[in-house]
Amino acid sequence: MRTKIIKSEGVNGSPVNWTVSDVVSYFTAAGFPEQAAAFRTQEIDGKSLLLMQRNDVLTGLSIRLGPALKIYERHVKVLQKTHFEDDDC
Amino acid sequence: MRTKIIKSEGVNGSPVNWTVSDVVSYFTAAGFPEQAAAFRTQEIDGKSLLLMQRNDVLTGLSIRLGPALKIYERHVKVLQKTHFEDDDC
Amino acid sequence: MRTKIIKSEGVNGSPVNWTVSDVVSYFTAAGFPEQAAAFRTQEIDGKSLLLMQRNDVLTGLSIRLGPALKIYERHVKVLQKTHFEDDDC
Amino acid sequence: MRTKIIKSEGVNGSPVNWTVSDVVSYFTAAGFPEQAAAFRTQEIDGKSLLLMQRNDVLTGLSIRLGPALKIYERHVKVLQKTHFEDDDC
Amino acid sequence: MRTKIIKSEGVNGSPVNWTVSDVVSYFTAAGFPEQAAAFRTQEIDGKSLLLMQRNDVLTGLSIRLGPALKIYERHVKVLQKTHFEDDDC
Repeated sequence: MRTKIIKSEGVNGSPVNWTVSDVVSYFTAAGFPEQAAAFRTQEIDGKSLLLMQRNDVLTGLSIRLGPALKIYERHVKVLQKTHFEDDDC
Repeated sequence: MRTKIIKSEGVNGSPVNWTVSDVVSYFTAAGFPEQAAAFRTQEIDGKSLLLMQRNDVLTGLSIRLGPALKIYERHVKVLQKTHFEDDDC
Repeated sequence: MRTKIIKSEGVNGSPVNWTVSDVVSYFTAAGFPEQAAAFRTQEIDGKSLLLMQRNDVLTGLSIRLGPALKIYERHVKVLQKTHFEDDDC
Repeated sequence: MRTKIIKSEGVNGSPVNWTVSDVVSYFTAAGFPEQAAAFRTQEIDGKSLLLMQRNDVLTGLSIRLGPALKIYERHVKVLQKTHFEDDDC
Repeated sequence: MRTKIIKSEGVNGSPVNWTVSDVVSYFTAAGFPEQAAAFRTQEIDGKSLLLMQRNDVLTGLSIRLGPALKIYERHVKVLQKTHFEDDDC
């Protein structure tokens, strides 16, 4: 079911294997096309995405605060939780 | 009674459903018309507002420190407390 | 005796009732006339002053680090301690 | 084996003895030639490298966030862990 | 012996009594002539020096990260430790 969530954004497989373009596609499909470009500018692939903390998303991407808060809370945090839970199995 | 406080600022319903314009109206009615515009610039709707921490209000909105401290302490913190308390019921 | 300290800086009453001008007068009398202006620029009245944390004084006022460290340690922190202790009585 | 990892990046000996040029060589060999230059700009030798925290790497080097996250997690943190573990023996 | 360390940098007495010029002399003698000027720019005397935290040295002086890390770790932290230990006696 968790894999389904990720697939529904049009990007396959575990975030750990995502390229920078996959990360951009994910956030574009997730409703943040404007902010998605910042992930390319900052060269954030799936491995880097899994290392991001709240403050990195809010201040390190130079994107507006409103969308940044949702990107962290609904996506980055969720992808990390899913990834590291799968890891524990 | 808590709902009454929110209504007295001219915005109806739970902050979670506020649009960016509702957030702007709320802070304008609350006595911060100049700072209210920053919430529009940063695209902060009710859902984002409920995710804001102290430092986000103080440094992420590019508003003066004096009003920022009051906006966080008397409004953002209070709206969040009210919202998450209601959630617990 | 605590009230006396505050009065000796030429500003009467509890900081909670200070206007922005009272805050400016307080820091001018306390030996920081140059930095006092920053409190006006940032619109900090007594209520906001009581909400300031170390980092707000050091980075939010755009004043030099040396005086900022003393302003926080010898004045902001002391005024807050006095105020919130009085509150407990 | 830990020494082997370090040697494989083309820099000999303990990081504590690295010059700024050794640090630059290390990160160039580690796949971050573009970011390596920032360590020279900020005059970071091995001793300073061992004192760096996550936030210093992410915001103090003025490099892109994606590579910065990997540089900290896979290199700075690992070199420090190895160094301070050896220290404990 | 601790006093001897301080004297060896050419500045006499406890840091708490140092003027801004004494602070500048101390860091010049300690091998950081370029960075010493930043302490004058930020008006840091001995009393302010004893109040500085890691982040203040790293980001509040606008000096390069490598030397800043050493200035904090080998000097500011050590002077504070010595001072506050003496205080406890």
